[in-house]
Amino acid sequence: MVGGGDGAFIGAVHRIAARLDDCYEVVAGALSGNPERALASGTALRFDPSRCYADYREMARAESARPDGIDAVAIVTPNHLHAPVATAFLEAGIHVICDKPLGIATAEGEALAALARDRNRVFALTHTYSGYPMVRHARELVASGAIGDVRLVHVEYAQDWMAEAGPQSAEFQRTNWHNDPERAGPTGCTSDIGTHAFHLAGFISGMQPNELLAELHSFTPDRVLDDHVQVMLRYPNGARGMLWSSQMATGCENALKLRVFGTKASLAFDQENPNELWLTPQGGSAQRLTRGRVRGAAAERATRVPSGHPEGYLEAFAQLYRDAAARIHAIEAGLPVPAETADLPTVDDGVAGMKFIDAVLASDRAGSRWTALDIGSV
Amino acid sequence: MVGGGDGAFIGAVHRIAARLDDCYEVVAGALSGNPERALASGTALRFDPSRCYADYREMARAESARPDGIDAVAIVTPNHLHAPVATAFLEAGIHVICDKPLGIATAEGEALAALARDRNRVFALTHTYSGYPMVRHARELVASGAIGDVRLVHVEYAQDWMAEAGPQSAEFQRTNWHNDPERAGPTGCTSDIGTHAFHLAGFISGMQPNELLAELHSFTPDRVLDDHVQVMLRYPNGARGMLWSSQMATGCENALKLRVFGTKASLAFDQENPNELWLTPQGGSAQRLTRGRVRGAAAERATRVPSGHPEGYLEAFAQLYRDAAARIHAIEAGLPVPAETADLPTVDDGVAGMKFIDAVLASDRAGSRWTALDIGSV
Amino acid sequence: MVGGGDGAFIGAVHRIAARLDDCYEVVAGALSGNPERALASGTALRFDPSRCYADYREMARAESARPDGIDAVAIVTPNHLHAPVATAFLEAGIHVICDKPLGIATAEGEALAALARDRNRVFALTHTYSGYPMVRHARELVASGAIGDVRLVHVEYAQDWMAEAGPQSAEFQRTNWHNDPERAGPTGCTSDIGTHAFHLAGFISGMQPNELLAELHSFTPDRVLDDHVQVMLRYPNGARGMLWSSQMATGCENALKLRVFGTKASLAFDQENPNELWLTPQGGSAQRLTRGRVRGAAAERATRVPSGHPEGYLEAFAQLYRDAAARIHAIEAGLPVPAETADLPTVDDGVAGMKFIDAVLASDRAGSRWTALDIGSV
Amino acid sequence: MVGGGDGAFIGAVHRIAARLDDCYEVVAGALSGNPERALASGTALRFDPSRCYADYREMARAESARPDGIDAVAIVTPNHLHAPVATAFLEAGIHVICDKPLGIATAEGEALAALARDRNRVFALTHTYSGYPMVRHARELVASGAIGDVRLVHVEYAQDWMAEAGPQSAEFQRTNWHNDPERAGPTGCTSDIGTHAFHLAGFISGMQPNELLAELHSFTPDRVLDDHVQVMLRYPNGARGMLWSSQMATGCENALKLRVFGTKASLAFDQENPNELWLTPQGGSAQRLTRGRVRGAAAERATRVPSGHPEGYLEAFAQLYRDAAARIHAIEAGLPVPAETADLPTVDDGVAGMKFIDAVLASDRAGSRWTALDIGSV
Repeated sequence: MVGGGDGAFIGAVHRIAARLDDCYEVVAGALSGNPERALASGTALRFDPSRCYADYREMARAESARPDGIDAVAIVTPNHLHAPVATAFLEAGIHVICDKPLGIATAEGEALAALARDRNRVFALTHTYSGYPMVRHARELVASGAIGDVRLVHVEYAQDWMAEAGPQSAEFQRTNWHNDPERAGPTGCTSDIGTHAFHLAGFISGMQPNELLAELHSFTPDRVLDDHVQVMLRYPNGARGMLWSSQMATGCENALKLRVFGTKASLAFDQENPNELWLTPQGGSAQRLTRGRVRGAAAERATRVPSGHPEGYLEAFAQLYRDAAARIHAIEAGLPVPAETADLPTVDDGVAGMKFIDAVLASDRAGSRWTALDIGSV
Repeated sequence: MVGGGDGAFIGAVHRIAARLDDCYEVVAGALSGNPERALASGTALRFDPSRCYADYREMARAESARPDGIDAVAIVTPNHLHAPVATAFLEAGIHVICDKPLGIATAEGEALAALARDRNRVFALTHTYSGYPMVRHARELVASGAIGDVRLVHVEYAQDWMAEAGPQSAEFQRTNWHNDPERAGPTGCTSDIGTHAFHLAGFISGMQPNELLAELHSFTPDRVLDDHVQVMLRYPNGARGMLWSSQMATGCENALKLRVFGTKASLAFDQENPNELWLTPQGGSAQRLTRGRVRGAAAERATRVPSGHPEGYLEAFAQLYRDAAARIHAIEAGLPVPAETADLPTVDDGVAGMKFIDAVLASDRAGSRWTALDIGSV
Repeated sequence: MVGGGDGAFIGAVHRIAARLDDCYEVVAGALSGNPERALASGTALRFDPSRCYADYREMARAESARPDGIDAVAIVTPNHLHAPVATAFLEAGIHVICDKPLGIATAEGEALAALARDRNRVFALTHTYSGYPMVRHARELVASGAIGDVRLVHVEYAQDWMAEAGPQSAEFQRTNWHNDPERAGPTGCTSDIGTHAFHLAGFISGMQPNELLAELHSFTPDRVLDDHVQVMLRYPNGARGMLWSSQMATGCENALKLRVFGTKASLAFDQENPNELWLTPQGGSAQRLTRGRVRGAAAERATRVPSGHPEGYLEAFAQLYRDAAARIHAIEAGLPVPAETADLPTVDDGVAGMKFIDAVLASDRAGSRWTALDIGSV
Repeated sequence: MVGGGDGAFIGAVHRIAARLDDCYEVVAGALSGNPERALASGTALRFDPSRCYADYREMARAESARPDGIDAVAIVTPNHLHAPVATAFLEAGIHVICDKPLGIATAEGEALAALARDRNRVFALTHTYSGYPMVRHARELVASGAIGDVRLVHVEYAQDWMAEAGPQSAEFQRTNWHNDPERAGPTGCTSDIGTHAFHLAGFISGMQPNELLAELHSFTPDRVLDDHVQVMLRYPNGARGMLWSSQMATGCENALKLRVFGTKASLAFDQENPNELWLTPQGGSAQRLTRGRVRGAAAERATRVPSGHPEGYLEAFAQLYRDAAARIHAIEAGLPVPAETADLPTVDDGVAGMKFIDAVLASDRAGSRWTALDIGSV
């Protein structure tokens, strides 16, 4: 693991996710650039002191040299380090599980994609929400034609943690790396959670827009990056869409919601109630499909406990780790990529996210003009 | 009543609404342009045959001449007739209760507004949803500062009745006046339900946008007018907004939903569950405010039965009729407009709606450019 | 109308319900036993002064003698007057629409049933909740076999208006007739709302229990009658059930909820969301059936506006008035009872409710023993 | 681990729960009485072959003799083995984490409680639902007086997996140990899930009933034990309650729901939506309290990820494992029981559950008579 020391939320989440399905042992880390904190954080996690690194390059080198070296690395640093860290480990032959967004520029993302392909290493990107069984079931339903041709895609991701007023919070916002273009990249809310929303829309609808129009906004004067973005989408088949993402949405916790309307039926998913998916036929009655009860290979593969026993965010996260493990095993055994891991987000999804950010920026700077977007066949 | 014969849905609704609070008797009508059907429809409603008119001008003339003539007329015709019919009755000194939208052009709307003012007649516009107690309570909460400064306004109005495929439905769509610019005006979905959404956003938020950006769309090749519109909004105080309206939203019944996010709290209202309003303080717990239980003068005035005994669409409609009656009584008695009727939508709201349509059209034709909107102080 | 003067909630509701579908004119009343208040209340409703009575017997006599006398009377008095008032009007040949419960003793109920039958008069009992379209649809679904054989019936009706503490409330409770056995009958909560729950359970399940076990309780020391009742039910076919009713259920508004579990599917209805009905097949996904969208003759007959335009309590009430009007017309025309009025609750349902109260009392007094109940074929 | 081989659902759940918070390694087991299957199941979990036992007594002996022997054992056998297995391990000085119910008779439960106390070993009983943060918050709210004096406790636990008809299912039911008094104990549904409901009611309300009245029922002729139970409860303070549990509740997944009504407010919890808890003040608006957002020591201790990132059943289960680990560490270190583990269900809760079963049986056999229940101060 690189990053994630000192009680960082997402580092702890990655470790639980790695452990949950018993596919990994977490044994080494460059948890901090400060050697003392790296050692303290690592031994707190029961790493051998020799495997507590203060430099990720050193870690990549040393671990690849050990006979019992790590198979995969989890990258949970601020955004600007994703690409350099991932590059170091891929070059050392180590598989990568990287937090989103992929990085801070499309070019570095494309280089990573090429490198991962070249070295035949797994590069999993933790678009966590694609690990939910009902999200995978939604994707499967759309792909099967169950909702007909997709006409509308509405996705939103709203939080309120930046809406707090007061000096303490202002301080927090100034020092926080999410508001620093050097470390966060050229957008704020857009890359932090907008890319999740964008990925989810593509994951379920099976389509990518070829044009978008966007407005970035910051509600707080001293904030450099956007805390709010709204986007209109056009798809090659004539479908339309909207994406809204905000960290100023008073009262919202982690409100990632998707609706897809097809010619035959519509689907609705709310991340805060992830054990259910709503399917409404045209002119008909809404049905509440539930994890564990609904039939479908994709959902069943991602399900651990029976219906009515809720699974949550950590299980979704663990699912990505489990899928990545299956791919790593296959590669190490010289086998083809297992078909049942097709839902795992990879470096290619990361590149798509970077292109989305580029197009949003370009549209916004041009006064919200319609802007072309070419994501290809993710 | 003008229009609304032959089992027309909205005509029957107006009649129930007029009756519900015992403020009106429905005694005369030009229910059809065909004299025989006008007579048949009218006598079916127990009108005196002498008061079953085939021509609204004749009705305006005759009723204003009768000692027991009508005080007010309800106009439930297709859009293009709203202005001429209303003009005839206003000129005859008869108060008007008119279905939305106000008409098919801003100019005719402004002329109507001037005429109503000039003749000192009530001109109520049935933006029904503003009659719900919890909508009025929301407006009152925002005005009182309970949610702080408004930052975001999200409104959507989605139906699925135009999404039906098949020849029968296509036939219906071809013949339906909603798709005929001569009778519906220059937009379809936008004027039919988009204006309701626009009115509700302004009614609750207490603000009108001064800029918008829009895209109209029709998903059906043989449809002349839009069946789908999405709009971004900018407000003078820096707030942002989105408006989406569609009659192609598979599985949606009458899904008018509004969210307003302020600096202190957010509000959410869903027309299909009109007895509740959600209030969520920043960083806090959502509260389900309910009609009959919540304290507030506006809500209490619009409430007939105790909490837990649901009121619905017809009661909201009746509320507009009741408010209009109170204004009519005041005018006839030479009294000032009663303060408690301040929530009644009028011809001025209608003009605002026409300007909204104009701006949407202008933006769409300019490739979704940001377009100024000047609604004034509605 | 007898009773219901002075702003009494239920009197106003009856008048709106009578008006809503344009089946009645409300023209006469004995709104109070005090002549001055009877006159004042009546003229406030625009009754002719000659038709404002202070004595219901006088009203029955006078109205039956007038050529334009009333066809039907609405009885909205305290419980102990239901039977004497209804008797007077039935004997005068006037149809009766009576608030629930039917009275204060089974014997008087049975006498009323006999009298109504003997005089061939309509006797409608306002078990309001049976007027909801989705309740009627539920009944139709069960009768059609859609949920298989009924195994479980769970019904509850919870309110919190008696749970208020403090002297003002205690005062209210002392003076209120609901706590006076002379006027309310031998039970409190049980007859006030428990009978509604009992009727709804029978109405939808199509079954009546033949055994019950009950516990009455009063949480307030100075209250004579029960404010809380819980009942276990056994049905002839082996089904089981529970009925709970309380006016001490802190935080509950008017929470009447029913669940029926059959061998094939279950149904759930919540009176506070009356436009929907949940149908869940065994092992399957819950479906949200909605008023206006669901197909079914019973629901469609009781529906005024399209799906997504909520109807509520007043419309349900109006439905009973409409059904009663159809029966009255048929009787006056010498025609058979119209099949489409089969859902109207009558004096027989009232007798069933009285027997339910008797059995609850008997069981409670015997230490919650299983007690036989013979309701017959309602 | 004893039991839980061969893909048994609950064995896998225990292993994930043990792993999730990194408090345990699962290293040994008597997963089956068949030596070959015990070895195969164990090695599949990467146990050393020397630690794959076919006899739990042998396992207790051998593990207690090893220097690296297990600290604690998880017991996931059928009910009749809980007591003998737990006895063997307690006698070997090994802490116990045991599935519910505690056993098949009160006497064996009391003996276990005495033994655990005598040997100063932790005996955790996996009443999983008490591990949910919002359940613990509810308990804390009640204890703090936030809802006033408790008046009503309603709990239900409904599933539908026994409601399946047809020969396959009948086969399943015949062979299943849940229907075998030798292995399940004297009740079926009552001990399987009724005890969960009973525990939850006591856990949150902070009260135990001193009287109950019950009816057991089996809807399937060939079923020996109950598949349905309904119970009325009386509490020493005059409160009343109902408990319903069924495995024949068509369409229910794992519907454990609790409502507690106090003099000031009511609480409602639904296990299928475990990240929220509803608090409704008397006469006021319902509030949706959410995990991660609500303040409270008990909830915060049991929370891993921020609000809006749902936690579920496995996390609740893991919480019990984490609490047990904290107690084990304290005991091994000679420290007092940590105050923050006070919510952990123990052998005493198991004894309370056995007494509940006894009282239910006694009441049912006496024709649903009120029956005394003495649980003491759990």
